[in-house]
Amino acid sequence: MDQPALGDVFGEMIRDAYAVRTGIGPRPLAGGRVPRPVIEIIERDDGLINGAPADHYLAEPDEWQPHDVRALRLCRGAVLDVGCGAGRTALELQRRGMAVTGLDTSPGAIEVARRRGLRDTVTVTVDDYARAPARYDTFLLLGNNLGLLEGPGRAPAFLAALAALARPGARIVAQGTDPYGTTDPVHADYHRRNRERGRIGGQLRLRLRYRRLTTPWFDYLNCSVDELEELLRGTAWRLKSVDTQDRPYYLAVMELTT
Amino acid sequence: MDQPALGDVFGEMIRDAYAVRTGIGPRPLAGGRVPRPVIEIIERDDGLINGAPADHYLAEPDEWQPHDVRALRLCRGAVLDVGCGAGRTALELQRRGMAVTGLDTSPGAIEVARRRGLRDTVTVTVDDYARAPARYDTFLLLGNNLGLLEGPGRAPAFLAALAALARPGARIVAQGTDPYGTTDPVHADYHRRNRERGRIGGQLRLRLRYRRLTTPWFDYLNCSVDELEELLRGTAWRLKSVDTQDRPYYLAVMELTT
Repeated sequence: MDQPALGDVFGEMIRDAYAVRTGIGPRPLAGGRVPRPVIEIIERDDGLINGAPADHYLAEPDEWQPHDVRALRLCRGAVLDVGCGAGRTALELQRRGMAVTGLDTSPGAIEVARRRGLRDTVTVTVDDYARAPARYDTFLLLGNNLGLLEGPGRAPAFLAALAALARPGARIVAQGTDPYGTTDPVHADYHRRNRERGRIGGQLRLRLRYRRLTTPWFDYLNCSVDELEELLRGTAWRLKSVDTQDRPYYLAVMELTT
Repeated sequence: MDQPALGDVFGEMIRDAYAVRTGIGPRPLAGGRVPRPVIEIIERDDGLINGAPADHYLAEPDEWQPHDVRALRLCRGAVLDVGCGAGRTALELQRRGMAVTGLDTSPGAIEVARRRGLRDTVTVTVDDYARAPARYDTFLLLGNNLGLLEGPGRAPAFLAALAALARPGARIVAQGTDPYGTTDPVHADYHRRNRERGRIGGQLRLRLRYRRLTTPWFDYLNCSVDELEELLRGTAWRLKSVDTQDRPYYLAVMELTT
């Protein structure tokens, strides 16, 4: 059996989802004729595989989950949308007249965001971008992108990169998921096994697949608010407030300590 | 990385899809709270992976594709619904007062079909069932189940099993897909490579995955009508008519030659 090839999984998927939603560009077809819904496929390292419709990455504000609407109210000054994808939230900030840069490592996603009208974009990791002279007042991590902290190994460097890009008084507005409310043994066993290996329970090891492409395996973090506070210890950031109205999802606001 | 475990992939998926559609039984949740759509995941041996919503397996007649509606009009006498799944078509035949048996190898799918009211079911391969005394006038293979012919290696035995279960004058009503209309290089390359290896172009090698379960790799056939006629040569069946109104899908009616 052939292995899937490494590539811009997210970008290819977003391009197709954009074509299906808008009719712009070639749409994926089943049997060469029938439009096929675009599904994001996520594999976890315990053999779990899940699919989810990708269209939500292009949702308009009136289709958003309530915590995303509340998150935008927490943005101040110049905003860096970290992992902006197809520009869902960055475009709305731009519409409101705010200064916003969309950052993503996926060239395909940035291409779609620009086609949709997002003016200021960078295709780069936060680590590389931290060497640029740009400075921001708000770092926005929506769509569960608190997960980009990955875990105890990665979080300090990730948070240091944001600190290097920060103006005095800057904040991070991030949406996370507390994974520990589940009673599903598939997930409870996974959390236990992670802890036995010295990892955070919700430190997921994942890869995304789309058609013949795959990402490398990467860590993505679902953690409790207590675990987040632990990860912030010794960094330039401290937890300022948490909005848990849409449990298990939450919005965490972190501020520069200096 | 752990490999997925062998198991009743289709049955687990159908059970969850049934729970989502009806509210009966535990529904799959994301984040332990939010209902998650049930997605069928199909891997092909060239590394291609596709997801598709599973709800269509439970569709009511007013949601069906037109060729499925036309297919039921072609049924005569006692019907064996081969690969009946959750009983979508068998239940409709039963409602119309026809004698129908639902056959599937998935215990989970048969359990759902019975819960939905299908009275006569067997959980068995056609090969094993051919040793039973039951006899039928129509073999119904919908939902692309002409694919169960697999290819030149399997088709003669599969067709012989149906012949052993047939009453004089019996017919097969099967829905197939002609895969060769595509211009997608991913599929065109796959067809070419298959032919280079002595396989039929659309002789797919697949496995289904759901959550932590996988099927073994199996062949599933998408073929042209010409290729179908070739496969029928030397068997007890001959092609009687083909309905190509919904290209690339078609309905083939085959009759006993004796």
